[in-house]
Amino acid sequence: MTDLSPTVCIVGVGLLGGSLALALKQRRLVRRVVGTDRLPGLLSRAVERGLLDEAEPDLGRAVASADVVVFCTPVDVIAAQAITASAHCRPGTLLTDVGSTKSAIVTAVEGRMPPGVDFVGGHPLAGSEKSGPEYSRIDLFEGRLVVLTPTATTTPAALNRARAFWLDLGARVEILGAAEHDHALALTSHLPHLVASVLSGILPPEWAGLTATGFRDTTRLASGSPEMWKAIFSNNRDSVLQAIDHFRIHLAQYRAAIAAGDSRALERLLDDAKRIRDGLPGR
Amino acid sequence: MTDLSPTVCIVGVGLLGGSLALALKQRRLVRRVVGTDRLPGLLSRAVERGLLDEAEPDLGRAVASADVVVFCTPVDVIAAQAITASAHCRPGTLLTDVGSTKSAIVTAVEGRMPPGVDFVGGHPLAGSEKSGPEYSRIDLFEGRLVVLTPTATTTPAALNRARAFWLDLGARVEILGAAEHDHALALTSHLPHLVASVLSGILPPEWAGLTATGFRDTTRLASGSPEMWKAIFSNNRDSVLQAIDHFRIHLAQYRAAIAAGDSRALERLLDDAKRIRDGLPGR
Repeated sequence: MTDLSPTVCIVGVGLLGGSLALALKQRRLVRRVVGTDRLPGLLSRAVERGLLDEAEPDLGRAVASADVVVFCTPVDVIAAQAITASAHCRPGTLLTDVGSTKSAIVTAVEGRMPPGVDFVGGHPLAGSEKSGPEYSRIDLFEGRLVVLTPTATTTPAALNRARAFWLDLGARVEILGAAEHDHALALTSHLPHLVASVLSGILPPEWAGLTATGFRDTTRLASGSPEMWKAIFSNNRDSVLQAIDHFRIHLAQYRAAIAAGDSRALERLLDDAKRIRDGLPGR
Repeated sequence: MTDLSPTVCIVGVGLLGGSLALALKQRRLVRRVVGTDRLPGLLSRAVERGLLDEAEPDLGRAVASADVVVFCTPVDVIAAQAITASAHCRPGTLLTDVGSTKSAIVTAVEGRMPPGVDFVGGHPLAGSEKSGPEYSRIDLFEGRLVVLTPTATTTPAALNRARAFWLDLGARVEILGAAEHDHALALTSHLPHLVASVLSGILPPEWAGLTATGFRDTTRLASGSPEMWKAIFSNNRDSVLQAIDHFRIHLAQYRAAIAAGDSRALERLLDDAKRIRDGLPGR
């Protein structure tokens, strides 16, 4: 990949952008990492931690010399930033992103790239409830799955470059349609976050001392950035609503079994859930 | 405590009973740990791992020489076992338990102990989704909270013995009414388990590969023993149903905010949840 992307620009230098910068440098995949961020404070924190070769607050100037631009900003700003940035990119530049939702982004970007500039949507299934460049981890993407969501107009060459970019970082890559991605992730990622937040939100302060590891683990995601997650839920509204309703119906089955004292039905539900959980692939 | 309980009998030698045996021996708090279990397989696995000084399959014989008996069996069998066992205990024996629900147990036991034998309900907020003596951990109770739930007839001496027992094991002790305990734990422990199971139960197999650490952590509890948890939900039915309804109402608020595109309401909900989660005491 080294000859394809000597300069990578990272737009949004939080946990994901910072981790990406670290991994690109440590694996010697790039000559130069340029970082940009709408928030000057975040950009200087990333610089202080030595994550970037160059910090350029202006988006247009930051992407001008890049071979690959990776958008690591909240999902509700990625598309607009990509369109704005693309006007400043040289032909041959690949744009991609790490957003947790894909349909809204790839649809908004579709047909808006200048000739020779490609956008390929991406989503590494990696992250943390923590925010900010100080939580960057050099191994954040290692062994993780990255979903790429090409559209009908994505060229094989652009898709291959995006795939190579992530493979070089030690990730696995899977290709999915954006709609299919959003539908699945609504259940496997967005719903867990929402459920964690609901659970945390109903804890009366006087019972905080009566929580243990079970409550802590089940609600860990609720510590995530409200701004980031609000955007994800809004951006993937229909699939998230469907996932919530799926959850509600299943919860009602548990409730009915408990209310009726139907021990057999309850055990069957718990057995099914355990079988699925025990069968999940390891990290 | 050493002079008060030279012999401790552990009824039910799974993860909790096994961990208790390990900790009692390592801290040299007892001369002898006798273990008993309805399941001969479990008892021999505990013996094989060297957790017990003596294994006695017969409950009556196992408790006959004990100074303290700790019931570590599923919550739906503790009360009956305590009543049966008490007839074989010497006067001066303290009976206690580690059950996750308390009202049903202390109510069933109330007034059923022979003269000189005391029962004090207890619940260490410690455990794991794993089951069986092979997962025993010597430090399982260290720094953890143990809730004791005395009734109107519990003597101060019995309560003090139970408190000393857990303090000696490095736990913290809090005294609560059984009903208050059950009401709080329905939300802080039983509901998280149920929510984890619901979430796990609705995962289509074809999306298992699209889960990451968020889904894994949020559903960890779903790997717990269905038999044990079925008993907990049934035993604490009313409080669990209330907790479910509390959750459902709050979930509906999230759903409404997402459906209406009410970004401000959504962010407020997520902010509240984050504040509560971030404020939880560490392990």
